[in-house]
Parts: sequence; structure tokens; C-alpha cells
Amino acid sequence: MNAPEASRTVRYSEWVDERVTDDQIPDMVYDDRGLIPAIAQDRATGRVLMLAWMDQEALRRTLESGRATYWSRSRQSYWVKGETSGHVQRVHEVRRDCDSDAILVIVDQTGPACHTGQPTCFDVHPPLFPAPTASPKEDHAPVSA
Amino acid sequence: MNAPEASRTVRYSEWVDERVTDDQIPDMVYDDRGLIPAIAQDRATGRVLMLAWMDQEALRRTLESGRATYWSRSRQSYWVKGETSGHVQRVHEVRRDCDSDAILVIVDQTGPACHTGQPTCFDVHPPLFPAPTASPKEDHAPVSA
Repeated sequence: MNAPEASRTVRYSEWVDERVTDDQIPDMVYDDRGLIPAIAQDRATGRVLMLAWMDQEALRRTLESGRATYWSRSRQSYWVKGETSGHVQRVHEVRRDCDSDAILVIVDQTGPACHTGQPTCFDVHPPLFPAPTASPKEDHAPVSA
Repeated sequence: MNAPEASRTVRYSEWVDERVTDDQIPDMVYDDRGLIPAIAQDRATGRVLMLAWMDQEALRRTLESGRATYWSRSRQSYWVKGETSGHVQRVHEVRRDCDSDAILVIVDQTGPACHTGQPTCFDVHPPLFPAPTASPKEDHAPVSA
């Protein structure tokens, strides 16, 4: 029986709403617009859902509410993911990278993550690699099961 | 026997080196530095390894060589991942997002992806959420195995 793990599992499945102040947020490296890229990954499937942007306030709101909250560059406003569509992202874990200039948000995604209705934003277009127009190579060997 | 899947598996596990020209690359949305964020994800584990940057030439080189190639903002030069460390990323698939302003590179990672020696760049720091300093909540129920 792994008690800490059990505790984590229960805790993270709830919405949280604990006050988070700016001084509780580590120094992050924002770009010249004050933004940092945030990768949303689905906890259940491991799929990368989307890439969005946060400023420090969006990050603070995300940490405080447990709801993934981004900065919309097109609308120039905060955007609680799923607020209108219902396709919310319940935050399981937020991590920063080694250089503190990228964020990984592991979420429980409700419904499709992409506004197009696709499960992820990376499902909309065909892959760039391998090239869709490339002629397939010979099979060299059967793949063992 | 799933022949197309078998064919893919063999093909993608090889290094490729087919000429890719700029006009074979779809129009992407680069930022004012000419860069686009590229998420590297490990094919085997599903883990998000790192976030790096590509310009169109780095993307072209990646598509052409099958080796993940980025633009180093600090060194202002192209950077074939693992060229010095040996921790290469063999490209399995490259996808763009719905808005063509982010790239997902699914790779076979050799060794640790992070220059710190951690498996991923997101393993270096403790999580921002849940807050490491937060007092743990009560367990509400045991977690079924």
C-alpha cells in the first residue's frame, strides 16, 4: 500500500482553490511579450493536446484554481480553457523545464482539446514527416509482434 | 497482419536522408524572430522531453535528415540534438498544430534528453502544482488498485 501515492491521486482529482501569490511562483523566463509557452498533455492518454501561452498572471491563476488558464494572444485576454466550450482542463500537475522557459501542464481533459473538435490540436493536419507524398520504402523485414 | 503499419514501423526506425525543399514545407506561423516552438515527445514512453525552437531551415533539416534539429537561441546556430552528447533524437513523426504555430516532434530518444542528465527537461525542478509547500489534504478514500 503506497499511502503517499494514494493521497496524491485523491488530491489531484479535485478542483483546488487555494490562494497563490506572485511570490510563491518561481522566477520564470518570459519572452519579450511577457509570455511563456505552455504544453498541455493529457494525463490519461499521454497525448500532447495543444501549445498555448501564459503570462505570470495566467500561471498564477492556473496554480490557484487548478483550471488551465492561458493568455490569448489573438484576443489579448485571459482564457480559462473550456470556459465557453465546456472542454475544460483540470490540472493534475504543472512543471517547468530546466531553463524555466517552458511549462508542462498535465491535465484531465474534458472533451476535445482543439477548437476544431479534434481530440488534440495536432490531429488537424496530416503529418509533415514522413512526407505524405514520399514514396514508401521497401519493407526490409516483417515486424515481430 | 497489418501491412501498412509494418511498413511504417520499419521505415520510421531508419535514418532518412531524402532531399526536402522549402516549397515542400507547409506555410507555418513563425514569430517575429522567425521561430516556432517545437515540442519533443518520446515515442516509447509518451513523456514530453523538452521544448525547443525551429526556424524554417531547422524544420527543413529535420524533415530531410530524420534527426531532430533545432535553432539554438543562446548560440544562434543550428543544433542537431545529440550531435555532441550522443543523445540523439531519431524522428518518428512531425506534426503541426491547428494554427500551424507549434510543432510536435515524436522521437526515439537515445539517453537522457536534458543536458542536466535528467531523462526530460521537466524532471529537473519540483512541480509548481500542486504546491510543494501546501499541506496535504485528507485522504477521502483508498485508491483501488
